[in-house]
Amino acid sequence: MILDIIHKKRLGKELTYQELKTFFNGYLEGDVPDYQMSALLMAICIHGMSEEEIFALTKVFIDSGDILNFSDLPGIIVDKHSTGGIGDKTTLVIAPIVAACGATVVKMSGRGLGYTGGTIDKLESIPGYRIDLSDEEIIDQVHQIGIVLTGQTADLVPMDKVVYALRDVTSTVDSIPLMASSIMSKKIAGGADKIFIDVKYGNGALLTKKDDAKELADLMVKIGKCYQKEVRYTLSNMNTPLGRTVGNSLEVLEAIDVLRGVEKDNPFVDLCIDIAAHMVSMALEIPYVDARGKVVESIRNDSAYHKFLELVKAQGGDLSGLKVSNHYSFIKSPCSGVIRKISALEVGKLAFRLGAGKEKIDDPIDYTVGVKLNKFVGDTVKKGDVLATLYYSDKAPEYEIDNIYKFE
Amino acid sequence: MILDIIHKKRLGKELTYQELKTFFNGYLEGDVPDYQMSALLMAICIHGMSEEEIFALTKVFIDSGDILNFSDLPGIIVDKHSTGGIGDKTTLVIAPIVAACGATVVKMSGRGLGYTGGTIDKLESIPGYRIDLSDEEIIDQVHQIGIVLTGQTADLVPMDKVVYALRDVTSTVDSIPLMASSIMSKKIAGGADKIFIDVKYGNGALLTKKDDAKELADLMVKIGKCYQKEVRYTLSNMNTPLGRTVGNSLEVLEAIDVLRGVEKDNPFVDLCIDIAAHMVSMALEIPYVDARGKVVESIRNDSAYHKFLELVKAQGGDLSGLKVSNHYSFIKSPCSGVIRKISALEVGKLAFRLGAGKEKIDDPIDYTVGVKLNKFVGDTVKKGDVLATLYYSDKAPEYEIDNIYKFE
Repeated sequence: MILDIIHKKRLGKELTYQELKTFFNGYLEGDVPDYQMSALLMAICIHGMSEEEIFALTKVFIDSGDILNFSDLPGIIVDKHSTGGIGDKTTLVIAPIVAACGATVVKMSGRGLGYTGGTIDKLESIPGYRIDLSDEEIIDQVHQIGIVLTGQTADLVPMDKVVYALRDVTSTVDSIPLMASSIMSKKIAGGADKIFIDVKYGNGALLTKKDDAKELADLMVKIGKCYQKEVRYTLSNMNTPLGRTVGNSLEVLEAIDVLRGVEKDNPFVDLCIDIAAHMVSMALEIPYVDARGKVVESIRNDSAYHKFLELVKAQGGDLSGLKVSNHYSFIKSPCSGVIRKISALEVGKLAFRLGAGKEKIDDPIDYTVGVKLNKFVGDTVKKGDVLATLYYSDKAPEYEIDNIYKFE
Repeated sequence: MILDIIHKKRLGKELTYQELKTFFNGYLEGDVPDYQMSALLMAICIHGMSEEEIFALTKVFIDSGDILNFSDLPGIIVDKHSTGGIGDKTTLVIAPIVAACGATVVKMSGRGLGYTGGTIDKLESIPGYRIDLSDEEIIDQVHQIGIVLTGQTADLVPMDKVVYALRDVTSTVDSIPLMASSIMSKKIAGGADKIFIDVKYGNGALLTKKDDAKELADLMVKIGKCYQKEVRYTLSNMNTPLGRTVGNSLEVLEAIDVLRGVEKDNPFVDLCIDIAAHMVSMALEIPYVDARGKVVESIRNDSAYHKFLELVKAQGGDLSGLKVSNHYSFIKSPCSGVIRKISALEVGKLAFRLGAGKEKIDDPIDYTVGVKLNKFVGDTVKKGDVLATLYYSDKAPEYEIDNIYKFE
């Protein structure tokens, strides 16, 4: 039976809901071994899946664990997901903004695997910040301050945890059907009423082509429809690192600067305002332009920043303990000219070598290290100008500047 | 590195010799886990491999173990391989014939996995027959009687053993590139000067289509060229069981009947004569027609049969101990008409249910059970005529006659 299912997908045929359920549940229960699951995953990666198959797989994923229910909370809850990239600290910025605009925010985030940390890793760079709130604590905090930013509970789509761990070590991560099922099952089981997805494309993202990002996004909208959940999305470029910093503490500090309105000529600010405006529009059911006005105002009047401080305090964090390494070196421009490219992938690798990310689930993270970009793409520089600052713990890393930067 | 190799093949790109060597040797040494190998095998199954890749993989397989050297033995040694099927006892017939015609025969065979036994399982149905001759014993016996029929030594392509075991449980067996590398590495490491391959196609074979069988055969000829080994082949139909019997002792008895010239109107006899004639032609470097004359004569004058008796005696076997179960039942014709089809696959499954084959390497085999066809395709039968005899140990098996037979 299990072999027949693998063989069917190997030939590119469509699997039924029952076949997917048998195979994946068998894997979760330990009856189907890793080597059979990885063979099936590879066949799925190569042949793809029909929409029917993707809907079925998403259902199997959702049914593997608890489904959270926040229907007792006030208002429409909008969840947000980013497919991830280098320097993506969007959640840290938009969650307080959306809450400051009057919408309820219950956001469960993940850790990072790969070059840099995930939202939860970034939050953990704030000493004391708790990412393991219980369901009761979540409800209480939402009633008190309207916002929660915590880790995923163990019972949220356990299937995704085991399958993702295997995908990670079998080169089967960047598959549109598998990504769609994985993301949407977590969002739907997470109990949100509406969902906003930031789909990244480029050399620093899982999907390099914009067309693929669009395909993934459209698919997630369709999966949302099956569960009566409105899904909106944006496609955002991840060829260049997102914002000015890559590294956990550094990114928290940058998020604070955006919330305080200090960061201005930074494309990351525009992305945050756009996503937050969409979420406010969805949550309050008001036009996008009106929502955007509220978002901009929440930054101007510091209400978003204060919401962030309220959030950190409520979850036990102490921002005064946030540390950035006091060892640093500079990347200086080898020439005069205009910066045409800053490779997200290469900056990510550099941050990883500094210790900002982890390869395996149990690897330690150094919160204090990272890369700060002093210049952006389009900036005119002179030879010797500081392009970036590298914060390190032990010793300054080696790098090939030509891999990271292109000038004109 | 390992993940990059999987990803490259996932995209359908060509792997280099060095990449294949790193990956497969890593697997043999236990550094690459099963789940990564099965992901790569699935990608290979779906995308195929270029000829360069197949040559490279064959080399990696050959280099994983010992290469036997029979250059001290007299004459040109011709090895023979069959891709396997239901009722395939060809080796038992052609090895004595070829030796009786004056060629040296050193044949190492495998066991069966799947519906019925392999050549070694069939030989073991002869009490006392040794299949574990040492290299010295092989050389001695060849000098004495010119023929050896034994099992594969442990060090013959160890890579194939571990990879095949994984293919078997991940639906990656019927892949032309993987089959070609597996078969040819064993034949080349086995030390033969020339190789004859019997490539089966049909519902009872691994490859169902004749075109695929031809592609596999042509590929093996090309691999042979890389090692200066002449390879010839025949494509033979495996939609119908091969010969009159399926089951270990029964097949040994049928082989003896063919050698004694008792079996005549049996398409299996024609196949044996054809293969033996090719092998004699290759070994003695004489035209096919002359070789065929010698083969037919060796059956007519009983020299092939006596060579078989000599072989069994030399390897310790006692034919008087060969047992067929004395419990049997009949499959009777449900109608009058002409037999249009006898499904090899279904007869194989039936023999398997009787206990003639094994699913796992340690399963026991019942040598005494099996199926004997009393009528062949094309025969005219009356309602109630005996179509086949089922030899069983415990109780007569259930079967759906419509699955096995088609009449007209």
